[in-house]
Order: sequence, then C-alpha cells, then structure tokens
Amino acid sequence: MITIQNHKQQMIPQYIKGMLDIHSHLEKVPDFPIIYNRHHDPEKVPILSGGGSGHEPAHIGFVGDGMLTAAVYGDLFTPPTYDHILEAIRFLDKGKGVYVIIKNFDADIREFSKAITLARKECIQVKYIVSHDDISVEPQKNFQMRHRGLAGTILLHKILGQAAQNGVSLEQLEKIAFDLATEIATIGFATKSARFPNAALPLFDLPEDHISFGIGIHGEEGYRTVPFSSSEHLAVEIINKLQIKFHWQEREDFILLVNNLGTATDLEQGIFLNDICQLLDLEGLNIHFIKNGKYMTSLDMSGISVTLARLKDPAWLDYLKAPTNAFAW
Amino acid sequence: MITIQNHKQQMIPQYIKGMLDIHSHLEKVPDFPIIYNRHHDPEKVPILSGGGSGHEPAHIGFVGDGMLTAAVYGDLFTPPTYDHILEAIRFLDKGKGVYVIIKNFDADIREFSKAITLARKECIQVKYIVSHDDISVEPQKNFQMRHRGLAGTILLHKILGQAAQNGVSLEQLEKIAFDLATEIATIGFATKSARFPNAALPLFDLPEDHISFGIGIHGEEGYRTVPFSSSEHLAVEIINKLQIKFHWQEREDFILLVNNLGTATDLEQGIFLNDICQLLDLEGLNIHFIKNGKYMTSLDMSGISVTLARLKDPAWLDYLKAPTNAFAW
Repeated sequence: MITIQNHKQQMIPQYIKGMLDIHSHLEKVPDFPIIYNRHHDPEKVPILSGGGSGHEPAHIGFVGDGMLTAAVYGDLFTPPTYDHILEAIRFLDKGKGVYVIIKNFDADIREFSKAITLARKECIQVKYIVSHDDISVEPQKNFQMRHRGLAGTILLHKILGQAAQNGVSLEQLEKIAFDLATEIATIGFATKSARFPNAALPLFDLPEDHISFGIGIHGEEGYRTVPFSSSEHLAVEIINKLQIKFHWQEREDFILLVNNLGTATDLEQGIFLNDICQLLDLEGLNIHFIKNGKYMTSLDMSGISVTLARLKDPAWLDYLKAPTNAFAW
Repeated sequence: MITIQNHKQQMIPQYIKGMLDIHSHLEKVPDFPIIYNRHHDPEKVPILSGGGSGHEPAHIGFVGDGMLTAAVYGDLFTPPTYDHILEAIRFLDKGKGVYVIIKNFDADIREFSKAITLARKECIQVKYIVSHDDISVEPQKNFQMRHRGLAGTILLHKILGQAAQNGVSLEQLEKIAFDLATEIATIGFATKSARFPNAALPLFDLPEDHISFGIGIHGEEGYRTVPFSSSEHLAVEIINKLQIKFHWQEREDFILLVNNLGTATDLEQGIFLNDICQLLDLEGLNIHFIKNGKYMTSLDMSGISVTLARLKDPAWLDYLKAPTNAFAW
C-alpha cells in the first residue's frame, strides 16, 4: 500500500522535486512536466521518452549522458498531454531533429502522435519508435499477443541514447531502433496487484500466495492466475513464453534484464534471478550482459518481469556497457 | 509478503547464488557463508563485515573495490556463527591484519567477539568497530537510546573501505572508525511490519495507515505508533530526533543517506526525501553528499530510515565519492 505522501495532487511534483534535489545533472523546464539533462551536447541528436507516472524510477531515472536527453511525464497512469510533448520536442530541437521513444498504449500513441504531427508542421524533424516488447497474451482475443511497451523499453533508451551520444544521425537512430525493437521481449508476473494511493481496493483481485502471469503495468490482470508453487515453476513458465517468441538456438547471443515491478524484495528477486539464469544456461544461450534491478514499476505491485533481447548487432553491447549518469540504470 | 522462493532453507544460498551469477567480482569461499572480492589487493588491509540475512542487499552488495573485502552471513535475522567469522578472518589475513565492522546487536557482538578473540590467539592482528548509529529510544527503559547498528553502518563500509584501498594501516583505520562511528546517526519509521516467509503473522502489529517510529531491522517495534498524517510530519519527527543527537549549528557540514527498509515505493521515498531535503535546508546545514536508495532492509518491511553523518574530516567526502563496483552502493 502507498502510504507516504502529502497530498494526492502533489505526489508526482514532489517526487520529481526530490529527484531534482539530489541529481545535479537534471533540470526541469519551468511550467512544463519535462525533465532534461542539462549537460546534453547540442551537436548530438536528442532522445525524448516519457509516459504516465506511477512507474518510478521511469522515466526520470533514465535521463542522463548517453541515455534520454529528456523525459515528459503525465499524472498516475495517464500519459502526458500532446501539448506538453510538443513543448518537449520544441525545447529539444537544436537543428538535428528529435528522436522519440513511445510505449505501445493507446492513450500514449494518441498523445505522442498528435504532438509529432504538429511538430513536423513546424518543420521539426521527428522520428520515433513504438516499443512493444510485451509478449503476454489476451485470453479473450484468441490469445493474441498484447505487445504493450514494458521494461524492455529501457534497453531502447540505453542503446539509442548511447548511439546518439556517439554521434549517429536521426536516420541511423531510426534504423537501429527498427532492428532492435523487434528483438526485445518482456513477460512478467505479479504476486500482489497494484493499488492507487487512497483507494480502498487493488486494481485487480489476486489472493495471497497466488500468481498472475503476464500482467501489464497499469493494473491490467494477467492471462492466468494460479496458486504459487515455487520460484523455479515461475521461471519455467516465463522462459517457455520467451522461447515461443524467440525460437532460439543453442549458443545464440542475448542480453537479460530482470525488473522489480514495485515491491518484490531483493531476496525474492535474487532467488528468481538464480532460477532464470540456470534455465538460460540449460538452454545453452550466451548471455552477454545482465541488468537486475528496479527500472519500470507499477505503483506498489509486487512482481518481477524478465526481458530478453537478441544481440543481433555487437555494437548494442558496447552501447549497453557504456557509462551513464542516469540514476536508475 | 515474501512469496517467491523454492524452499525456506534454500532462500539465502539461492539469493547468494543469484548475485554470484551476475557479479563477476564476487566469489564464495567453498563450504563457508563468506563472499569476497576476488580482485582484492593483498597489499591493502582487508575489511570484513556481515551479519544475519534478511537485510538484502546488505552485506553482499557492499563487497567490492574500495568497500568491503568480504562479507560473512548467517540465516534470516541470525548472525553468522563465530567459527564462520573466524574462518573469514583467517581467509582474509595476508599479514596486514583484518579490520572488522560489527553491528551493535547482542547476538552479533557475541559471535564476532568470540571469533576475534580466537583469531588473536592465532596471532592474527584484528581491530574492529561496533556501529551503533540507531538513535531510537526505549520507552520501557527511561527512553534510553537503543544504539543498534542500522543503515549508517554502510557509511563505515564505504569510508573505511576506501581508506584501506588508499593504503592506510590497520591502526589508522581504527582511528578513522572511532572518529566516524560516533558522528553517524540513523532513525527510521515503518508503515508496515516485516513478516517472515511462510509466517501467518507479521513480526509486530501495525494497522494500515499507521506509522511506527524508531523501528529496528529485526522486527523490533518502534517507540511510538501514530496514525499517518503526512510525509512532512514524518520528516519533522525524524529531523527533530536527529537534531537532539547532533545539536547542529547553521552551516555545519553533513552527509545524508536515505534508505528504503524493504518495500516502500520509489514514489513514496522520493516524496519523503524531498521533505527531508527541505527541512535540512531550513536548518541551514551544508549537505555535501546524498545517497538515496535501498541499502539495508528488513525483509518486506515497508519504511524508510534517515542517516546523517557530521563531516568532521573532509577526507571522508573523498572516500564516499570514490567509485566502487560494490553493486548496492
């Protein structure tokens, strides 16, 4: 349960202010919900991302050298409005164009695409990618993949951010993004649903000691609810779903990101990570890079998501390994 | 609630294995609950710390260059046994002696002091400090300070670890530690008690939307339970208690560490951090260094602790700012 706050309307501004208090490279555009890296080199193509709040440390935590140039944010689980996004694009454009990373949710697409259309009318060059890494399925719709944008989006932030830092053009960023976005897949589970601050009920019903597989990050229930049995069983289900997406062969090259969806303990996440690593080892994959932490959450949901990305281009690995001062990487 | 596990007896070994899977500088001493930095320079005095488990990412997360050389761990909330600590001391001694950082709990003191006595009988030079940063009070004992070792211990790890890395002797480490340990104070609160895995009940009773001030990290209840009012009220109570300890003057130099005790959300911690920063600013203190994250937890307790350290020696700041590969710093 989310308890600590002063006033519900002030939660997001006060969180943002807390982060600005302690991270000197971050600055806010006055009167707009836009945070940017004050050390950004205007010779490099700027990268913009953002979305609703309630996913802390996303997206402010990924603003920094070699990652996002700026993040624009909305209220809890509500995307920023198109005029705020447009303002962010205008603010970032220094003649090199602006590259935008959008998560695949209807409301986000609506606001971002309106902003991009308007920016282009102002002769600002804008290119974008829609991250759609979620491979959860929709039981009501013939088990189609949901393709929402989840924690795999963070890999786009890092790889595209470092590519831009290295001086690639807007067109080259677009090419990297197209190659990369389809090679990223994420699937997660929850042991406890998220609950809005001051709300009487959680966003979906999940009894204690039960698991919902394939949850979203806005309170969307998963495709199946089962009693918890063991961390190893969770890991098997997750790896099976990822295998269906990738059809991998032994010795293929991957990167792994394990993400705390909010309030899983480090102890639980470490135990589960160990099971995931053992299964990937049995599959014979070469895992070249592993991130384990808290990157994209859903309020106080307890759960973990697993992201794999096929390493089609070895340059991606260099981009991932490059240092950044983004505080949540 | 802690749900994700395979078998209660295997929780700690599997968590440790997960961390070893992904952090290549860490290695385990075979057959002993001891994790060490495999790149440690034998010309530098080694630093050992440790304690019970259930405080993840402590202590394994602080093993690395310029921080702990090794950590020895016990079961959940149970210190390592003296023979395991002794083995760690023997393993680390390469003729420069061993410096040990112990948290002030009766059971920890008993095991560590027995191990140190036995190591000295084997002619190993051992010096130690007992961290006692907790300034919570004991209502049943005339409101005496409790002086348990809490998240402030992490500052000892970092400052002494970097001092050792810079080549100071065992005697010099002892001097720094004596100067530093009395200048560190920690006080925290919980919004939810911790609960042992598979336990029916939490470790202490705390109704929803209530706060327990001055909790410990082993399920010890605080000195006062009140209904939650606002983050700002929490911050005022915490800063008042810290002021009583330090009797600070305007423009005095401090460092700040804000610690997630387990399952507070980043959103809550950021809001609370903002309130703490504003109050410290009103007090006119110079805060030279701020850490905000998850350093020493108590299972799935939800809560936050605040540590201040008076910067008596400017060298401490250099030690804090030096880079380390310890994964939880």
